[in-house]
Amino acid sequence: MTKPDVRILVLHGPNLNLLGTREPGVYGTTTLKGINQSLMALASEFSLELRILQTNSEGAMVDAIQGAMADCQGILINPAAYTHTSVAIRDAIAAVALPAVEVHLSNVHAREPFRSHSYIAPVAVGQICGFGAISYLLGLRALAERLGK
Amino acid sequence: MTKPDVRILVLHGPNLNLLGTREPGVYGTTTLKGINQSLMALASEFSLELRILQTNSEGAMVDAIQGAMADCQGILINPAAYTHTSVAIRDAIAAVALPAVEVHLSNVHAREPFRSHSYIAPVAVGQICGFGAISYLLGLRALAERLGK
Amino acid sequence: MTKPDVRILVLHGPNLNLLGTREPGVYGTTTLKGINQSLMALASEFSLELRILQTNSEGAMVDAIQGAMADCQGILINPAAYTHTSVAIRDAIAAVALPAVEVHLSNVHAREPFRSHSYIAPVAVGQICGFGAISYLLGLRALAERLGK
Amino acid sequence: MTKPDVRILVLHGPNLNLLGTREPGVYGTTTLKGINQSLMALASEFSLELRILQTNSEGAMVDAIQGAMADCQGILINPAAYTHTSVAIRDAIAAVALPAVEVHLSNVHAREPFRSHSYIAPVAVGQICGFGAISYLLGLRALAERLGK
Amino acid sequence: MTKPDVRILVLHGPNLNLLGTREPGVYGTTTLKGINQSLMALASEFSLELRILQTNSEGAMVDAIQGAMADCQGILINPAAYTHTSVAIRDAIAAVALPAVEVHLSNVHAREPFRSHSYIAPVAVGQICGFGAISYLLGLRALAERLGK
Amino acid sequence: MTKPDVRILVLHGPNLNLLGTREPGVYGTTTLKGINQSLMALASEFSLELRILQTNSEGAMVDAIQGAMADCQGILINPAAYTHTSVAIRDAIAAVALPAVEVHLSNVHAREPFRSHSYIAPVAVGQICGFGAISYLLGLRALAERLGK
Amino acid sequence: MTKPDVRILVLHGPNLNLLGTREPGVYGTTTLKGINQSLMALASEFSLELRILQTNSEGAMVDAIQGAMADCQGILINPAAYTHTSVAIRDAIAAVALPAVEVHLSNVHAREPFRSHSYIAPVAVGQICGFGAISYLLGLRALAERLGK
Amino acid sequence: MTKPDVRILVLHGPNLNLLGTREPGVYGTTTLKGINQSLMALASEFSLELRILQTNSEGAMVDAIQGAMADCQGILINPAAYTHTSVAIRDAIAAVALPAVEVHLSNVHAREPFRSHSYIAPVAVGQICGFGAISYLLGLRALAERLGK
Amino acid sequence: MTKPDVRILVLHGPNLNLLGTREPGVYGTTTLKGINQSLMALASEFSLELRILQTNSEGAMVDAIQGAMADCQGILINPAAYTHTSVAIRDAIAAVALPAVEVHLSNVHAREPFRSHSYIAPVAVGQICGFGAISYLLGLRALAERLGK
Amino acid sequence: MTKPDVRILVLHGPNLNLLGTREPGVYGTTTLKGINQSLMALASEFSLELRILQTNSEGAMVDAIQGAMADCQGILINPAAYTHTSVAIRDAIAAVALPAVEVHLSNVHAREPFRSHSYIAPVAVGQICGFGAISYLLGLRALAERLGK
Amino acid sequence: MTKPDVRILVLHGPNLNLLGTREPGVYGTTTLKGINQSLMALASEFSLELRILQTNSEGAMVDAIQGAMADCQGILINPAAYTHTSVAIRDAIAAVALPAVEVHLSNVHAREPFRSHSYIAPVAVGQICGFGAISYLLGLRALAERLGK
Amino acid sequence: MTKPDVRILVLHGPNLNLLGTREPGVYGTTTLKGINQSLMALASEFSLELRILQTNSEGAMVDAIQGAMADCQGILINPAAYTHTSVAIRDAIAAVALPAVEVHLSNVHAREPFRSHSYIAPVAVGQICGFGAISYLLGLRALAERLGK
Repeated sequence: MTKPDVRILVLHGPNLNLLGTREPGVYGTTTLKGINQSLMALASEFSLELRILQTNSEGAMVDAIQGAMADCQGILINPAAYTHTSVAIRDAIAAVALPAVEVHLSNVHAREPFRSHSYIAPVAVGQICGFGAISYLLGLRALAERLGK
Repeated sequence: MTKPDVRILVLHGPNLNLLGTREPGVYGTTTLKGINQSLMALASEFSLELRILQTNSEGAMVDAIQGAMADCQGILINPAAYTHTSVAIRDAIAAVALPAVEVHLSNVHAREPFRSHSYIAPVAVGQICGFGAISYLLGLRALAERLGK
Repeated sequence: MTKPDVRILVLHGPNLNLLGTREPGVYGTTTLKGINQSLMALASEFSLELRILQTNSEGAMVDAIQGAMADCQGILINPAAYTHTSVAIRDAIAAVALPAVEVHLSNVHAREPFRSHSYIAPVAVGQICGFGAISYLLGLRALAERLGK
Repeated sequence: MTKPDVRILVLHGPNLNLLGTREPGVYGTTTLKGINQSLMALASEFSLELRILQTNSEGAMVDAIQGAMADCQGILINPAAYTHTSVAIRDAIAAVALPAVEVHLSNVHAREPFRSHSYIAPVAVGQICGFGAISYLLGLRALAERLGK
Repeated sequence: MTKPDVRILVLHGPNLNLLGTREPGVYGTTTLKGINQSLMALASEFSLELRILQTNSEGAMVDAIQGAMADCQGILINPAAYTHTSVAIRDAIAAVALPAVEVHLSNVHAREPFRSHSYIAPVAVGQICGFGAISYLLGLRALAERLGK
Repeated sequence: MTKPDVRILVLHGPNLNLLGTREPGVYGTTTLKGINQSLMALASEFSLELRILQTNSEGAMVDAIQGAMADCQGILINPAAYTHTSVAIRDAIAAVALPAVEVHLSNVHAREPFRSHSYIAPVAVGQICGFGAISYLLGLRALAERLGK
Repeated sequence: MTKPDVRILVLHGPNLNLLGTREPGVYGTTTLKGINQSLMALASEFSLELRILQTNSEGAMVDAIQGAMADCQGILINPAAYTHTSVAIRDAIAAVALPAVEVHLSNVHAREPFRSHSYIAPVAVGQICGFGAISYLLGLRALAERLGK
Repeated sequence: MTKPDVRILVLHGPNLNLLGTREPGVYGTTTLKGINQSLMALASEFSLELRILQTNSEGAMVDAIQGAMADCQGILINPAAYTHTSVAIRDAIAAVALPAVEVHLSNVHAREPFRSHSYIAPVAVGQICGFGAISYLLGLRALAERLGK
Repeated sequence: MTKPDVRILVLHGPNLNLLGTREPGVYGTTTLKGINQSLMALASEFSLELRILQTNSEGAMVDAIQGAMADCQGILINPAAYTHTSVAIRDAIAAVALPAVEVHLSNVHAREPFRSHSYIAPVAVGQICGFGAISYLLGLRALAERLGK
Repeated sequence: MTKPDVRILVLHGPNLNLLGTREPGVYGTTTLKGINQSLMALASEFSLELRILQTNSEGAMVDAIQGAMADCQGILINPAAYTHTSVAIRDAIAAVALPAVEVHLSNVHAREPFRSHSYIAPVAVGQICGFGAISYLLGLRALAERLGK
Repeated sequence: MTKPDVRILVLHGPNLNLLGTREPGVYGTTTLKGINQSLMALASEFSLELRILQTNSEGAMVDAIQGAMADCQGILINPAAYTHTSVAIRDAIAAVALPAVEVHLSNVHAREPFRSHSYIAPVAVGQICGFGAISYLLGLRALAERLGK
Repeated sequence: MTKPDVRILVLHGPNLNLLGTREPGVYGTTTLKGINQSLMALASEFSLELRILQTNSEGAMVDAIQGAMADCQGILINPAAYTHTSVAIRDAIAAVALPAVEVHLSNVHAREPFRSHSYIAPVAVGQICGFGAISYLLGLRALAERLGK
C-alpha cells in the first residue's frame, strides 16, 4: 500500500461519543469507535488518511475546521445538534474553502421540525442522512470521488 | 455471476431526461443514460437487478411505485421537482412499505428556499443530495446495504 | 326498480386502489372494491347511477370532472393526496358547477398538519372525514339529499 | 320497538338556538327544534336514545360532556364558535374517551379563514360540515355505525 | 320628557366590575357605577332607555345579546378580554342583526400586540378606544345617531 | 360667544377630498366640505378654533403636524391610507407631543386585512372608526374632553 | 397550632375534576381530592388556610379570582385548558394584584405546540409544570415563601 | 406571405378547454377555439407559426415544453392552476432555455391570495394578467418583439 | 387623422426619470423620453391622446390620478417603488373608478421577494411586467382594447 | 445522618456566576454561592449528594451532563441563555436518560418573547421559573420526589 | 486650506428638523443645526464640501438623491422613518450608484421591532446607529475613507 | 504620552483570525493583526489601553466579557457568527453593564436574511457595519466619545 497523500478531517459533533448507548431506537447500537474503524478501513482503500475528532464544543469544531486548512483536503462532518444552530461552523467551512460533506445518522427529516433545517448544508458539497453508520461511509466515498481518488 | 434475486425500482422524476443538456452549471454534463449505465454496473456488483423509469408525470410515478410492490424490494428515487410538491408520491411510498432512498443531483439546500423542503424524505430511509451522478450511486449502495447485499 | 335518472361521478384519488393493503392502521382493511359495492347498493336505494373511477393522475381527475359535466348531476370525490396540493382539481369542480362532496377515510385533522388544509373544500358543498368506508356512504347520502332524491 | 340501550349526547353550541332566525343566507331556515325532531326520528330507527342540550356557555358544554361519561356511549357535537377557540371542550372529549362526531351546518372551509381550524376535530372520530341540518343526521348515522347499531 | 321608545343593551365584559380598583395606571379611577350613571344621563338626553349588564362569563354575554333581539334596538358593548378570544360573541352579534358599537377604555393599540385584534369589530358598526369612560359616552352617541335619535 | 382660546388641527389624509364622489358604498355621500362645516359648528360649541387641512402628501401631513406644535393644542387626524404605511406621521405625532385622536369613516376592521393595522394608533390618545362623518364629530368631542373644554 | 392568618385561593380549571379517570398515561392516577388533601396538609405546615374551587367555566374562574381580592393573600392556579385561550383570567389576575403561581400537572412543553403558550404566565409570579400532583405542592411552597411564611 | 421561420408553442393549462362555459363572471364568454383563432391571425402578421396544445396534465405540459426545445423558438403559456403549484413546469422552462411569456385571463392579484404566487414567473421573461383573451394576444406580441419579429 | 376623443393618463413613478442611466443590467438603456415617444406613436394609431407625467412623489401621483377623473378615460401606470408600499395610490385608483393598467419594465417576480407584492394590482384591470419598454406599449394596447378603440 | 446514596448534578449555565451583581432588578441580590449553600442544606435533608458546576460554555455543559451518566441519578439544570439556543444540551439530556428538572430564576414568560421558548423543556421532567433562588430549591424537591427520596 | 474637490450630500429625513425638541429621552438635546455645524467642521478637515438638506417628504428625498448624481461623490443619509417604509429611496440610491452611508441617532435595534428592518441598508455601503449626533460624524468619516480622503 | 487610564476590551468572534485568507470578496484582504495595529494606534491617540482577544468559542467570549467587568470601561465587540445565535453573549453584556459597541466588517443587511438579526445589538450602545476594518476604528471612536475621551 502506498503512502496516503490526501488527508480528510472527520469531525464528529456533540453527543456522538455516546453512540451505542444513546437512544438506540433512533441511533442504533453502533459505537463511535466502530464507525471510526469502518471509516479507516474504507479510507485505506482510497489511500486517504483520516484525522478524526469528536467534541461537544462548537468552538472546538470551528478550531478543528480552521486547522484542516493547513494539511487536509476535505472534511467529513456530522455537526449533530450544531447543524441547526451554528452559524460559526458554517462560516468556518466557508472560510477554509475545503470540500465538506455533511452526514447524519438519523433521517433528520423524519424527526422534530427544527431538525430539517441545516445552517451547514448550503456551504457543504452535499448532505447524506438516515443510513446510520453507513451515512459516514457514503460520505467518505463522496469526498473521495470529489478529490479524484 | 449468479442470477440477481433482488430487484430495485430506479425512478427518475420530471425533466431528468434532459440531463446533460439542462443547466449544466447546476446539473453537470452527465446524461441520464450515463447515470443508468453506472447504476447497472454497480448493481451487478451487488447482484441487484434494476427496473429503470423516467417520467414527467406525477401520476405515472405513483403508478410505478405501486407497481414495485409486486416484484421489487427497494426504491431509488429522484423525485426532482415533485420532491417539493407531491403528497401523492409520499403516500405511495408509505403505502408500498418498501425501503426508499431519495437522491438529488444538486445540493437542494444551496438553491431557492422552497427546494429545502421534501414531502418525500420523512417516509424515505434517508436522503442524499449534492454529488451529481454520484448521488445515485451512493443511494444504490445505501439501499443494497439496507437489503443485506 | 325504476331506471336511475340521476348519475353521480364517484372519483377516487391517488393510492386509493391500494386500500386494504395500505397502512391498515390508518385506513382499515376494506378494499376499494368493497367500498364501491357498498356505494352501488346504497345508490340503488336512491335510484342513483354511479360512474366510478380511480386514478393516480391529477390530470385524469380533472378530465373526469370535466367529463361529468355532460351527463352527471353530482360528484362524490376523495381527492386523497391531491386534496392538499391541487388547484387544478379545485378549478375543475368550480368550472363544472356540479355539487361535489369531499370525503376522506381518515380523520385528516388528526394527522400531519399539512393534511388539515384542503384546496377542494371551499368549492365543495361539504366535507366528511374520519369514518373509513362509511365516509363515502355518508357522502353519497348527502349528495342524494342535495339532489332531491 | 325495543327499548333503546344506547344513549347519545347531542350537544349544540353557542347561538344554535337562534337557528332559523340567524343569517338564513348562511344557515338556512330550519330551526333547532326541527333538527332535534329529525334526529329523534332517525335515532329511533337505530334504537338510540338522545340526550339533547343547547347552551351558549363553554363551561356548560364541558360539564355536559363530562356528564355523558356516566350514561352515554357517544357524542354528537356541533361546537359552533367554540370549535375555533376552546381547548377546554377538546380536553373534555379526550378525557371522557367517548366517540365524538363533530358536525357543522355550514361549510366552514368556505368562510373566514379562522373557521377552518378546529381544536375539536383532532380528538373526534371525524368531522362533517356543509350540509345544513343534514350534517347532524349524517353524524348520527356515523356514530350509530361506530357503536355497532 | 317623553317616554323612551328605543332601548339599548349596554354590555360590560369581564373584570369591568373592578373598574376604579383595577390597574388605575391603565384604566383610571372611574367606577363602573359612575360610567353607568353618565350613560344614563346621556341616554335620557336622547330619549333612550338602557338595559345594563356586567358579567365575567362569555356565555352570559352571548345570552344577553340574544336577549336583546326581542326588545332592544342597539348594543353598546365593551367585550374587554373577550374582544380578542370570542368567536361566540361575534356570532351572537351577527345573528341578532342589531347595530353594535364596540368600546374600550384603554387604547388597545398601545398595549400588548394580541390586544390589537378584535373578533368583534368586523361585525360591529364601529369601534372606539382609548378615551376612558368617555369611550362609552361617544359610543352611545354613535348608536343614537345610527338609530336616528 | 367668547373668542376661542384653544386651536385644533384637523388633518384629512389622502383621497379624502374625493368624499361624496368616492366609493359611496363604502364611504357614504357626505362631502369633505360638509364634514368640515359640521366640525366647525361643533367646535364653536366647545369654543374651539379649527385649522383644517387636506392633503394627499405624506410629507405635507408631517409638515402640518409639526406646524401644530406652535399654536395648536390637539390634533384630529384621519390619516386614511397613510394609517397603514406611514412611520413618518407616527413619529411626527410622537414628536410634537400633542394629544391626537385618530378617526376613520369606514370600519377598517371589516375591510382588507392590511387595514386593521395602524402605525398611528399606538401614539394617539385613541381611535374611532366606522361611523362615517360622525367619526369626526365624536373625535372632536373626545379631544375637547381631553383638553378640558 | 395557631389560627391561620393567611388564606390562599386554590383554583382548579376545566376537566381537573376528572383527574384519576382522565388519560392516566398523561395525568397519572391521583384524584383531585387526593391533591386537595395533600395541599391542605402542607398548608397547615405553613399556617395557611386554603379556599379550594374547581370549575369548568372561564367566567366562574374570573369570579373566583375577583372574590379572592377581599380575603385571600395569594392564588395557586392550574388554569388547565384556559391557560392557552383566556385573556379574561389573565386580566383578572392582573386586576386583583395578588401573587399568583401557575401550575400544571403535565409538562406542557412536551405536548401539542399550542400548549407551550400561556396567557397567564406573564402576569403570574412564576410557573411550575410537569411534576404531576407535586406541581401543586411546589407551587404552594413558592407562594408561602413569597408571602413570608 | 412568406413561409414562417419561427415557431411558438402555445400551451394552455388545466380547465382552459372549458372557456366560455366556465365561470363567465370571472373568465368571460370567449372560447378557447376563439382565442386560438385570434392568436393564429396575429401570428401570421408576425410570420410566426403556432403549435397549440391544451392539456389538464402537469406531466403533459412538461412533455410539451421539452418537445419545444427541438423546433420552437419561444413559449406562450397560460399555466392556469399549475401556476401556483408546479415546480416541474418551472424546471422544464428553465431547462429548455426558450423565452417564455406567462399569461392569465383573469387578474390573479384580485382573487384568492394563493393565486398571487407564481412558480413560473421567475423563470419567464414576463407575466401578463387580467385582460381576458387579450392577455394572450399581448403575450404573443411580447414574444414576437423578443424574437425580433 | 381625426381629433382624439379619448385621453389616457400615463403616470411614471419614482426614479423612472433616470431610465437609461439607472442599473442598465436590470432596466436596459431606453430613456423615458424614448418610451414616451413610442407611446405617443402608438396612441395616435388608436386615436388616443396621452397626458404624461413622471414624479418621485407619492402624493403627486395621487393628485394626478384624481386629476384624471375630470378628463381622462383610463390610466397607464408604472408605480415603480410605490407598487409595494402605497395604499394611497391604490385608494386613488379605486376612487376615480377609471380602468387602470399596471406595467413594470423588469420582471418583478424574478427580483427581491418584496417586489412580488403589489398594492395596486388588485384595483387595476391587469398587470404586465418584464418586457422593458414594451411593457408600456402592451399596456396601452390593453387599455385601448378596454376602451373600445 | 446516613451516607447519601443518590447524587444529583446541579448545573448552572452562562452568566449565573455573576448572580447578585447582575441586573438585580431582574435577578435579585442572592449570589450563586448562596444558592449553592441553600441547595446543599436541602439536599442533606433528602440524603442527596450534589455535584455543582457553573460554566459559560455550551460544550462544557454537554460534557457535564454526559459525565453525570456514570454516577448521578438526576440533573437540576438552569440552562440560562442556552435554554433558548442549545439543541446540543437538549440532545445530551435525552441521551443520558436521567430525569432532569429545568429551573429559571426569573419568569421567562414575562420577558422578551424569545425567552418563552425552551429547547430543553420537552426533554426535561418539568420546568420551574420565576421564584428567584427558590426555583432551585423547588426543583431539587421535585427531583428528590421523583427519585423516591 | 485648498478648495474642496469632493462634495457629499447630507440628507436628513422626516422629523429630524425637530431634533432637540423631540423626545429628548430617545434622541438627546442636540439640534439639527448643531449636528450640521459639527459635520461641516469635520468635512473641512477632510477637504469635503457638504450639501445639506432636511425634508419631511419621501419624494423630495428621492429628488435630492437623484440631484446628487450630477455633482456629489457620496451620500450621508439618515432616512429616519422612511428607513422602514421607502422602497423609492432605496431605488434612488441604487440608481445613482454613489456610495451611501446610512446613519441613525438612536439604536434602532433597541426600539419597536419594525425599526430593525431597513429597506435602505442593503444598497448602502454600511449602517451606523445608536451614537446620537456622533453617528453622523462617524458616517462622514466612513464616507471620507471610502472616497480616499 | 500619559499613561492610559481607561481600558477597552476588544473582542473578536469566531473565524475572524482567518481574516485576509477568508472569502476576500466579502471580507477584504486586511488581516486581524493589521486591524489590531490600527486599533492600537488609534487607541493611543485617545489614551486608551486595549485588551485584545480573538476566540472561536461562545463560552470564552462570555468569560472575556465577564472579565472586563473588573478592569475595563468599555467593550468593542465583533461577535461575528454569534451575533445571530448567542443569547449568552447578550446576557453577559447586559450583566456587566459596560458600554459595548458592536461592529461588523461586512454589511450584514446585504447578505443572507438571517444575518440581519442581532441578539447583541439591543443591549449594545450602537452598531456599525459594512466598512471593513474601518468599522472597528469607527467603533473605537464611538466608544472613546462615550467614555468622554
